[in-house]
Amino acid sequence: MYLVKVYVTYKESVLDPQGEAVKGAVHRLGYQDVTSIRIGKYFEIKVAALDEKTETDVQREIEAICDKLLANVNMETYRYEISLLEEVSV
Amino acid sequence: MYLVKVYVTYKESVLDPQGEAVKGAVHRLGYQDVTSIRIGKYFEIKVAALDEKTETDVQREIEAICDKLLANVNMETYRYEISLLEEVSV
Repeated sequence: MYLVKVYVTYKESVLDPQGEAVKGAVHRLGYQDVTSIRIGKYFEIKVAALDEKTETDVQREIEAICDKLLANVNMETYRYEISLLEEVSV
Repeated sequence: MYLVKVYVTYKESVLDPQGEAVKGAVHRLGYQDVTSIRIGKYFEIKVAALDEKTETDVQREIEAICDKLLANVNMETYRYEISLLEEVSV
C-alpha cells in the first residue's frame, strides 16, 4: 500500500481572501506578529500496490488525479510525498 | 521570520464524506486502486521573529491559534512543522 500526501495551494500570484480573513481573526485574538496566512487543501490518499505497481506508476497516477480533479491548475499548484506503508499481516 | 506549516485532518474515528465523494470521482476516472482519500486543511503561517522570539514561543502561539481557530478539536486533530526562514537583506 502506498500513502500519498498531496498539498494543494494557491499560486503565489493569486490573492488568498480566505487566508486574509483568517489572518484578521488571528490578529483580533492578539497575535499581531503573524504576518501572513495562506490556506490550502491537504489530501491523504492510499493506493493499493497491485501487480508490482512501482512508485513511478503511483507518481504518474497521482499527477493525473491532481491535474484532473484535485487542483485547479490555473490558480493552484500542488506537491506530493509518496511513502510505502508496511503491510501488517494478521 | 518563522514559517509554520499546519495540517488539520479529521480524527480517524470521524467519517470524511468529502473524502468519500472525491474517492468516488477518482474511481469514475478509472483509478480503482485508490482505496481511501481523507481531506484536510493546510496552512502556511509566517510569524515575525520579534524580540528574540524562540521556537518554543512560536510553538505555544501556534497551538493556541489552532485550538481557538484553525481546528475543531472535537472532530479534528492537527500537527505542524516550524522552520526558520533566512532573512534576505537587500
